[in-house]
Amino acid sequence: MSLLVVGSVAFDAIETPFGKTDKTLGGAGTYIALAASYFGVQPKLISVVGADFGQENLELLKKYNIDIEGVQVKKDEKTFFWSGRYHNDMNSRDTLLTELNSLEHFDPVVPENYQDTDFLILGNLSPIVQRQVIERLHKRPKFIVMDTMNFWMNIMLDELKKTISMVDLLTINDEEARQLSGEYSLVKAARKILKMGPKFLIIKKGEHGALLFDEQNIFSAPGLPLEEVFDPTGAGDTFAGGLIGFLAREGEISFANLRNAIIAGSAMASFNVQKFGVEQLLDLNQKMIYERLQQFVQLTRFDYNQIL
Amino acid sequence: MSLLVVGSVAFDAIETPFGKTDKTLGGAGTYIALAASYFGVQPKLISVVGADFGQENLELLKKYNIDIEGVQVKKDEKTFFWSGRYHNDMNSRDTLLTELNSLEHFDPVVPENYQDTDFLILGNLSPIVQRQVIERLHKRPKFIVMDTMNFWMNIMLDELKKTISMVDLLTINDEEARQLSGEYSLVKAARKILKMGPKFLIIKKGEHGALLFDEQNIFSAPGLPLEEVFDPTGAGDTFAGGLIGFLAREGEISFANLRNAIIAGSAMASFNVQKFGVEQLLDLNQKMIYERLQQFVQLTRFDYNQIL
Repeated sequence: MSLLVVGSVAFDAIETPFGKTDKTLGGAGTYIALAASYFGVQPKLISVVGADFGQENLELLKKYNIDIEGVQVKKDEKTFFWSGRYHNDMNSRDTLLTELNSLEHFDPVVPENYQDTDFLILGNLSPIVQRQVIERLHKRPKFIVMDTMNFWMNIMLDELKKTISMVDLLTINDEEARQLSGEYSLVKAARKILKMGPKFLIIKKGEHGALLFDEQNIFSAPGLPLEEVFDPTGAGDTFAGGLIGFLAREGEISFANLRNAIIAGSAMASFNVQKFGVEQLLDLNQKMIYERLQQFVQLTRFDYNQIL
Repeated sequence: MSLLVVGSVAFDAIETPFGKTDKTLGGAGTYIALAASYFGVQPKLISVVGADFGQENLELLKKYNIDIEGVQVKKDEKTFFWSGRYHNDMNSRDTLLTELNSLEHFDPVVPENYQDTDFLILGNLSPIVQRQVIERLHKRPKFIVMDTMNFWMNIMLDELKKTISMVDLLTINDEEARQLSGEYSLVKAARKILKMGPKFLIIKKGEHGALLFDEQNIFSAPGLPLEEVFDPTGAGDTFAGGLIGFLAREGEISFANLRNAIIAGSAMASFNVQKFGVEQLLDLNQKMIYERLQQFVQLTRFDYNQIL
C-alpha cells in the first residue's frame, strides 16, 4: 500500500562517548523513510532542504527507493541543522545548537502524485505543519500516525491537541506522556491521551521498549539488550519508520497487527543505535532484518500452556 | 518438589505517597515463602525473630502452608525492624531506620526435616549466612537461587563473590548488576557476572520487567503496567518467591522453563505492589493468579509467523 512520510531532512552533528560526527545526514523524515523503505514500499517524502543539501544527498534518498518529488529545495536557504551531545548513560542529551533554516517557514506542498495515500506518518514537526499536510490531502488516509515531542507541548499545546485529535496513532515517550496527561501512571496517562482523539497510543521507553494502548488492550514490546549503543539519534524515528513500513506492507490495521508492527519497528531501532547517524540504516539487508526479528522472538517467547 | 527458603522475617514501617503503616509483617523470607506457597509447595523457612514477633504471626505463616520449624525465636531479642519512605515516583526510597536486632547474630540452623531439599532460595542476607546454609546441607540442592543487594557489595565484596560462585541463579537489579560488574551495558554486565559462577542471572528492572541471561540466551519479561502502585516493598522478593514456587512445582530446570518461571514471578510481584506490605499476598486465590497470568500472555503475544 502507499505511504506518505512528512518530516525534517537535516544535517546533524552528534557527539557521544564513543565518537563524534561534524555534519551527517539526519532528520526525522530521513530516518522514517529509510527504515520504511526496507519493507517493500516506496515512501513518498514531504520535506524541505537548503541549497547546501546537495544533489548527492538527494540521489542517496532516491537510491533507497524514496520518492523525493515532495522535497522542496530552497535555493537561498540552508538545511535544518541540529547538534547534540549525549551523556555517558546515553539516555539523556544536551542540544547544543538548533538552526531551523529552511524549516522555519516550511510550507508543505503535496504533489499530485502523492494524493490518495493509504498511510500517512507525520514525523516530529510543528503541529501546524503536520495539520496542514492532513488538510491538503484530498482524501483522508486510511491510517495517520503522528510523532511529536515535549517542545511542542511547551510552546503550542492547543495547536498540538488539535492535530492529535485528527490522527489514529500517536507516538511519544514516557516523560512526554506524563507531561501531556498530567498523570504519572502510564496506564492513566494512556487513558487520558486516548480521550484526546487517537484510537491507539504508543509510549516509547527507550532501552526498556515500548507500550501500545487502545481503550481495552495493552501490548509491551521489549528493547533488545545490546552490548554497545553508539548513538541513539533517530532511534524513535527509525522505530516509527519500521512500524509504518510494516503496516503499509501488510495493510491490516488492528491491535493484533500493531503488535507485530511494533516488533518490526523495535528491530529497526535496535539496528540504528549500533552505528552513528543513519550509517546502519544505509547498510541493511533482508537477511539481517529477518535474523533480528528472530532475536525478538527468542527474547520474548514463553510457553503459554505451561503458564496457564 | 521440596523448597527451602532462607530469609529475614521482619517488622516494617512503610511510608508511601498513598499512606503509611507503623509496624507490619515484612522481610525477604516472608515475601518469598508467601509467594511460593501459592504454587502448591510447602516452603520450609529458615529465619530468626524476637520475642515480640508473637504467636499470632507464627500461626499466620503456618496458615499459608509454610513450615516454620527452622524459624528460631530469640526470647531476649527483638525482631528485625526496617522503616523506609518512598518518593513520589515510587522508584526510589530512603531507609529511615534499620534495627538488625535478632538478625545481627543470626546463626542459621537446618532442622533434620529440612535436609534433602530440591530447591533452595537464599533471600537477601549477609553472604556469610547465605553460605553457611549451603554448607550445612548434607547434600547440595538441585538448584540454588540467591538474591543480594548493593549493601553487601559495598561492605564485603569478597565474601559475596564467594557465595555467588556457589549458586545456580543470581537475582539482582540493574544498578547492582552494573556495580558488581563495572559495566554499564547489561549484556556485558551479565557476561561478567556469569563468569563468577552462576549458570543463570536475572536482572530486575522494577516497573520495566526483568531480563534472564545464560551464556547463550536472553529473555525479557515485561512489568505489568498498573494504574496504581501503592507500595513496592517486597516486590523483588515476591518475584523471587513466585519464580522458585513455579520451578518447585514444575521441577524442570532449563532456560525454557525459567522463562515461564519469570512470568509467574512477575505476576506475583504485580499483585504485591497493589496493596501495602504483604496485604495482597495474604489475600490471593488460584483464579486471581490464573487471570493475572492471562494478562501477561495478552501483554506480550504477537504473531511470529506474520513477523518472520
